[in-house]
Amino acid sequence: MRPSHRSPEQHRDITITRHYTDHAEGSVLIEVGKTKVLCNASVAMSVPRFLRGKGKGWVTAEYAMLPRATHARNQREVVKGKQDGRTLEIQRLIARSLRAAVNLKALGEHTITVDCDVIQADGGTRTAAITGACIALVDALNWMVASGKLKKNPLKQMIAAISVGIYQDTAICDLDYAEDSKAQTDMNIVMTEQGGMIEIQGTAEQGEFSHTQLLAMLALANNSITQLIIEQKKALEME
Amino acid sequence: MRPSHRSPEQHRDITITRHYTDHAEGSVLIEVGKTKVLCNASVAMSVPRFLRGKGKGWVTAEYAMLPRATHARNQREVVKGKQDGRTLEIQRLIARSLRAAVNLKALGEHTITVDCDVIQADGGTRTAAITGACIALVDALNWMVASGKLKKNPLKQMIAAISVGIYQDTAICDLDYAEDSKAQTDMNIVMTEQGGMIEIQGTAEQGEFSHTQLLAMLALANNSITQLIIEQKKALEME
Amino acid sequence: MRPSHRSPEQHRDITITRHYTDHAEGSVLIEVGKTKVLCNASVAMSVPRFLRGKGKGWVTAEYAMLPRATHARNQREVVKGKQDGRTLEIQRLIARSLRAAVNLKALGEHTITVDCDVIQADGGTRTAAITGACIALVDALNWMVASGKLKKNPLKQMIAAISVGIYQDTAICDLDYAEDSKAQTDMNIVMTEQGGMIEIQGTAEQGEFSHTQLLAMLALANNSITQLIIEQKKALEME
Amino acid sequence: MRPSHRSPEQHRDITITRHYTDHAEGSVLIEVGKTKVLCNASVAMSVPRFLRGKGKGWVTAEYAMLPRATHARNQREVVKGKQDGRTLEIQRLIARSLRAAVNLKALGEHTITVDCDVIQADGGTRTAAITGACIALVDALNWMVASGKLKKNPLKQMIAAISVGIYQDTAICDLDYAEDSKAQTDMNIVMTEQGGMIEIQGTAEQGEFSHTQLLAMLALANNSITQLIIEQKKALEME
Amino acid sequence: MRPSHRSPEQHRDITITRHYTDHAEGSVLIEVGKTKVLCNASVAMSVPRFLRGKGKGWVTAEYAMLPRATHARNQREVVKGKQDGRTLEIQRLIARSLRAAVNLKALGEHTITVDCDVIQADGGTRTAAITGACIALVDALNWMVASGKLKKNPLKQMIAAISVGIYQDTAICDLDYAEDSKAQTDMNIVMTEQGGMIEIQGTAEQGEFSHTQLLAMLALANNSITQLIIEQKKALEME
Amino acid sequence: MRPSHRSPEQHRDITITRHYTDHAEGSVLIEVGKTKVLCNASVAMSVPRFLRGKGKGWVTAEYAMLPRATHARNQREVVKGKQDGRTLEIQRLIARSLRAAVNLKALGEHTITVDCDVIQADGGTRTAAITGACIALVDALNWMVASGKLKKNPLKQMIAAISVGIYQDTAICDLDYAEDSKAQTDMNIVMTEQGGMIEIQGTAEQGEFSHTQLLAMLALANNSITQLIIEQKKALEME
Repeated sequence: MRPSHRSPEQHRDITITRHYTDHAEGSVLIEVGKTKVLCNASVAMSVPRFLRGKGKGWVTAEYAMLPRATHARNQREVVKGKQDGRTLEIQRLIARSLRAAVNLKALGEHTITVDCDVIQADGGTRTAAITGACIALVDALNWMVASGKLKKNPLKQMIAAISVGIYQDTAICDLDYAEDSKAQTDMNIVMTEQGGMIEIQGTAEQGEFSHTQLLAMLALANNSITQLIIEQKKALEME
Repeated sequence: MRPSHRSPEQHRDITITRHYTDHAEGSVLIEVGKTKVLCNASVAMSVPRFLRGKGKGWVTAEYAMLPRATHARNQREVVKGKQDGRTLEIQRLIARSLRAAVNLKALGEHTITVDCDVIQADGGTRTAAITGACIALVDALNWMVASGKLKKNPLKQMIAAISVGIYQDTAICDLDYAEDSKAQTDMNIVMTEQGGMIEIQGTAEQGEFSHTQLLAMLALANNSITQLIIEQKKALEME
Repeated sequence: MRPSHRSPEQHRDITITRHYTDHAEGSVLIEVGKTKVLCNASVAMSVPRFLRGKGKGWVTAEYAMLPRATHARNQREVVKGKQDGRTLEIQRLIARSLRAAVNLKALGEHTITVDCDVIQADGGTRTAAITGACIALVDALNWMVASGKLKKNPLKQMIAAISVGIYQDTAICDLDYAEDSKAQTDMNIVMTEQGGMIEIQGTAEQGEFSHTQLLAMLALANNSITQLIIEQKKALEME
Repeated sequence: MRPSHRSPEQHRDITITRHYTDHAEGSVLIEVGKTKVLCNASVAMSVPRFLRGKGKGWVTAEYAMLPRATHARNQREVVKGKQDGRTLEIQRLIARSLRAAVNLKALGEHTITVDCDVIQADGGTRTAAITGACIALVDALNWMVASGKLKKNPLKQMIAAISVGIYQDTAICDLDYAEDSKAQTDMNIVMTEQGGMIEIQGTAEQGEFSHTQLLAMLALANNSITQLIIEQKKALEME
Repeated sequence: MRPSHRSPEQHRDITITRHYTDHAEGSVLIEVGKTKVLCNASVAMSVPRFLRGKGKGWVTAEYAMLPRATHARNQREVVKGKQDGRTLEIQRLIARSLRAAVNLKALGEHTITVDCDVIQADGGTRTAAITGACIALVDALNWMVASGKLKKNPLKQMIAAISVGIYQDTAICDLDYAEDSKAQTDMNIVMTEQGGMIEIQGTAEQGEFSHTQLLAMLALANNSITQLIIEQKKALEME
Repeated sequence: MRPSHRSPEQHRDITITRHYTDHAEGSVLIEVGKTKVLCNASVAMSVPRFLRGKGKGWVTAEYAMLPRATHARNQREVVKGKQDGRTLEIQRLIARSLRAAVNLKALGEHTITVDCDVIQADGGTRTAAITGACIALVDALNWMVASGKLKKNPLKQMIAAISVGIYQDTAICDLDYAEDSKAQTDMNIVMTEQGGMIEIQGTAEQGEFSHTQLLAMLALANNSITQLIIEQKKALEME
């Protein structure tokens, strides 16, 4: 039924490459099917103005697509002079999600910025970015401990994200571009390894979605995110 | 328990003033407690470039706060030179929600822009904007029929929105500013009069929220939105 | 003769609503005929950089129109990325006028910003803004005294403004939109309660205006402003 | 009494150099005392969008100061990304004034843009710009007739401008920087050769100005502008 | 002598990966030592406005660095709202160089845009970009022929680029970051396979450079570029 | 052969006017044929942030063209909101060149900004700007010594610039607009009075240029720059 010939609950293969670039404290290339996102975590020894002197750290994120990450070339945002609404919405989502993974008090007055740059897009770039950025974030936190910047690792928990949707009246998970462009409902969900919910953003693209459909999508998301966090930990050799 | 002394399922009093200004085809001042939003719907006899020649109409929205709508004065966005991420995110949400109320094919090559300007803010400005904007949109559609621009009214259904959240581990609805600033989870929900879901956007501000808490919030939202749509129809003398 | 059927020296009815919003230190809705402007005065405990450490205060103003304050919808200035020349010109005029009402040394190192947002426009928005903003400013000054921020009220005098013009070769006052769009000359005048002149800005829209016509317009302005200041004081219960 | 040791009614020497640059259809360097403004009039064979197809022409103006035209260097406006309010206000004034000199219908669908760039500033740059720009405009109109673009010259009348003010309670004309920075009132006046008024913009910098003072300033302006128009015509060899 | 322990004429190993991403008509990852640049060539069926209707095509380029391509994170240019001078200078250089490789008349009314995005920087990003972009350009031209957009391939010749410099008074080629930051002179050279010069841009960072030193640098560049073009052709299987 | 009827090695007459404006510490109008550039050097008692506290000074430059410096009017860059690539490239070149003339340590924590504003353009504006700016810079340095800001003059050497090119297969120097627009190669060279090279920027506009042609252009540049520096010194009465 699905253009991808996957079963409704089947997510795409995921490949995680750590240390993808040399300079960043955490650098992860995450590939979810044909979607490829480079997530670079940078540590700064300061915090934004609104946090100065409060003994707390900050985690933030930026998101962009390379111009030809998509089928047709998109104009560079800098040429238009500003980030568009979709970009700002996505990077706010990534940043809020990552902050749920870290104890900001334990981070002290440091800022971690995770840049998520989409090299190639085939649906699910924001959820791939979150899943990959969390790994880069952990690498950066580990680097801070190893280099003596922090005594104790402020990581609270792993988080990961998946997209789910309603396609031909059926709930499916991890939509690729072909599926996403025809889905009736599109939903992005961020969860913890214990199944706690961090973010849920669902939109009825055509018509509306029912309570029953919502529950079906949540179940698919829960299942996929559990598996994604196992992949994250395997890549990080955490267990 | 709530700072507002309301029960968990109790939303604030709502006042709807139609024809608030003279020029707009639909003009509604909606007051939800102390939150006041002016929603002006403007009809244009053209569509954005990406729709030209396709025989379809468009509904869009813009959102802004007056500088002193809030406790402290905010710098005008035009002085900063661009809309911030929160503003863009909100106006995209309002616009998507309103498009769910209209049959865009039946609208023909016209655009309706609903400007939602917050005169005073006390929490829930985006959901008040959606609920008020839907009424202004209906007034504009009625004006199009009455003035001969359209033969048949393209309204599909009423939609309304409410915020829900988790406050001291309890699900509550329609958070005011004092409640919102201390909530553990903050969620905005847009639904139709038949209980179909249009948008759901939930964020765990502290910790995470559970599946059970999500279900409790959804029940509160469903209950409030049913009542809001009765208020909308009463104001519009639709029944 | 006038489209408004008013006599040349007759200005429109004026309605002043103080405390229109809750948050601002001074908040006035002024209605001059169908023109409605919300004037919110905000007090800040600092001054712009060029005044720091000089023991003087500052009064400034910003002006904007809601997109559908006018017959046809105007694009929001923030979408264009900057304020246009007319807006900047008007808010500079309002700010200079308000500074004539206040002893800036007695104000101390505080800034009062008066936001003038036009809810509905029917000609004379800048003069209505000045007349209303002066009342909001007085409320803010009174609040500063009442809350102990200042010992002595730095108000020097009331100021108010009116538009005058030449319509069909006759001097008239307080032009509405229909009159303004056909006037041969358009002039905005700001005066004190003692008849001193603060600002005069006159433009020949068609042809030129004569010295005699200028004198006729000045007389009309003087007469109207005297009455406007009586209205301001009545609203403020100053006498 | 005046820092410049001039009598109240004495304006500064004026030097007009036509054909100052080679490319512009009209190119005038005007020197008023130490104030030097280069006024270049450019003819375009089209009109702005709002005038297309209406058989009318347009005259517009732009104004800028070179960064070191003043005592201290000013940052280039392009570096700040936009023109400031003062610049926009001045170029709107210049443009409106120049349009009073031309029959726009007789100009046909052409646009004349006069660029006024201040090479050196010593007070009165905007009035010098208007007086010089009018000459450049006439040269451009003459070029249009000579080159066959127009059959009949659309010039209606010469216009010129002067600043006047109140300095130590006395009305004076043509203030230089030292006088302007201490003046109690600052007024710019644009008039025709017949003494008709085109623009009047007066501001009380300290206190207010009286009706009597206004009349004294108007008389000085009338006297100076009559002489300036004689100088303009002499430079143009019009009589 | 060199920090890289290379001999003066020794350039770094180069790795060329074609078809690095799926969507672009030409997609090349070029690695020159630790410098990695992704070059994506996109074909558009139109030309910029200044070329419309002239029967000629256009080749252009854009250049950017990912924020953490460098040792310390750079702010994204879109956040600053514009491209900085270095970026504009580099992308103009790349575009001019690529146009020397193509017969624009034979290209017809098509535009090829090559996006050069630096994934990791270690000196020589602009010359690596040119060398890689030329390969992506050839792939795009071949695609145009294969897909019937063009009958004849408009490629004129291969071009490639290298940096040379003076380090401790000696001419060296292909400077990495450590060498570049201490070089006395920094020069970028673009040449054809026949040894013709396309671009030369040299800057004395400290002191000046002599005619003799210039000749030494040119010889090194000629030698390296000959080898680079062999690598390009090998990758393209052109010979 | 040349449109200008000059011999290949013949540069245009040069006129240098010092103290062209009153306010700048150095103010030079340089005329090279019909090209006229005003170079104003401004001294500031501070340095950019990246140099604070390092005991070193800074020399920078800005470049702009008046809108009608050219045959057709160019839109003002501030109206477009940003400087274009050509402008940024040129002012970076001017600034780097000027820094080669000054011992920045001996300059102390001062900044000299040289504004180069093109009054009229006929080819070679950037090289005229460099040659003129160097004189304005020397005047500013002399002013700093004369006014006691510096004890010792930090001037290291004079620098000057010339354009050379290949026109009809022959190397020529100092191209005017007519020559430049048809040249096969266009090169700008900055040198010291001792013949040391500071900057070389050459572009093959059509085809490529050979090593032999490069040597011919360098010889012409060397010859012209030697003469230009004699002119500079004569104007400065340095010898």
